[in-house]
Amino acid sequence: MTSLIVAYDGAAFHGFARQPGLETVQGRLESALSIATGREVQITGAGRTDAGVHALGQVISYTADPGDPDPVSLRRSVSALAGPDIVVTGIRSARPGFSARHDALCREYRYLLVPGPTAPLALRGRAWWTKRGLDLTAVREGAAHLVGEHDFRSFCVRGSADGRSTVRGIELVDVQPALVLGEHCVVIRIVGRSFLHSMVRIMVGSLVEVGRGRRQPDWIADALTAEHRGSAGITAPPHGLTLWHVTYPEEFWL
Amino acid sequence: MTSLIVAYDGAAFHGFARQPGLETVQGRLESALSIATGREVQITGAGRTDAGVHALGQVISYTADPGDPDPVSLRRSVSALAGPDIVVTGIRSARPGFSARHDALCREYRYLLVPGPTAPLALRGRAWWTKRGLDLTAVREGAAHLVGEHDFRSFCVRGSADGRSTVRGIELVDVQPALVLGEHCVVIRIVGRSFLHSMVRIMVGSLVEVGRGRRQPDWIADALTAEHRGSAGITAPPHGLTLWHVTYPEEFWL
Repeated sequence: MTSLIVAYDGAAFHGFARQPGLETVQGRLESALSIATGREVQITGAGRTDAGVHALGQVISYTADPGDPDPVSLRRSVSALAGPDIVVTGIRSARPGFSARHDALCREYRYLLVPGPTAPLALRGRAWWTKRGLDLTAVREGAAHLVGEHDFRSFCVRGSADGRSTVRGIELVDVQPALVLGEHCVVIRIVGRSFLHSMVRIMVGSLVEVGRGRRQPDWIADALTAEHRGSAGITAPPHGLTLWHVTYPEEFWL
Repeated sequence: MTSLIVAYDGAAFHGFARQPGLETVQGRLESALSIATGREVQITGAGRTDAGVHALGQVISYTADPGDPDPVSLRRSVSALAGPDIVVTGIRSARPGFSARHDALCREYRYLLVPGPTAPLALRGRAWWTKRGLDLTAVREGAAHLVGEHDFRSFCVRGSADGRSTVRGIELVDVQPALVLGEHCVVIRIVGRSFLHSMVRIMVGSLVEVGRGRRQPDWIADALTAEHRGSAGITAPPHGLTLWHVTYPEEFWL
């Protein structure tokens, strides 16, 4: 197998997953790889990011062929063929059977919030400008309820689990102030093995309601136990979210 | 006098200074202020940034009128009227005769470089992707030659001094690695009382030539003493540059 690490600007795509007639990350990468290798290539991605969600460290995998170009040329030609909104930042050989999706140990997402009174021009398209101030102590108290193994039925798009389990394990929800390009931001890092559809954005949207004082931190725990989408908060907009990093067991790399 | 602090996205404008028939920061702000106050307003800016150069803390001043709206409403209406590429981040009353241009104690510019092998998508339009690695020790050695009072004739657009002195004092050229939105960057902070046309960009372009090993650090000193534009380096692209902050003596504020 071959694995690529890719970054992309989510604004340019209708999400990761291929959809006929629409610009998607998967579609663009499969076209580029097919041209670069001279054969039809189908890829698997670690995270099926929604329309508008960015990636810094998305990982994809596909079946290698002995006739494929060497990694350095392949990386260069795929980057060139995929256009200006996708960049291949790494390429690795992996053991047969490796799947970027199923073998991930954990995925890290980061969400950028700007709670200040003025629009953060330098972060347009990369941060959610929430305008009013956020009480970070309350946000952290709310976030603590999300860590651990829970049924996240309330924190996903209805029907997205497709009858399967909506139980997921969250390892970390870290909330930190940060100065980014001169703007006073709040960065929310969320790490877990896997996520349901829109789960990260609903977690962030709910935490923002807590930070604004519209809800108490314990409301997050109540929303979890309710097991109903309507009990959690709004879905944060996609442009503040980035699939940051995906971790795999070392033994997969050749 | 009234003083506004404004941020803008340089990509949207043909520079700060008003030019007939072109979108400029000054033109847009004067229109917005004239509508908001119901009278013709002419402004003075601390820095006449070139086309494509951004600002986080540009300062402008204009003669106040007793009939002007209160600061909070004025700030809100100018921000709304100026469009999505300019934001008013502050408003202050200043003593009569105050000039944002002539009374500045010092101006701070920041230039963002990305010396990595892959395009920094999250910083598109905000950083110069120099691709090859930079030797920061050499850049700092070169930068040290720029600090202090020198004739910067080699580091400005020919004829820009208009017969006047090209001697300027540079207080600081600080070169630091920084991780911004997941990208490994180099931030160059340049502080001085005032600057010649394109001076910051020629300083940065010259330092990048040193960092790439194409020139020795001492070449910066030679370029200064040559007093000829051709002896310095290239002009760095505008989109990596931001007018960060302007400082005034406290006694000007009412």
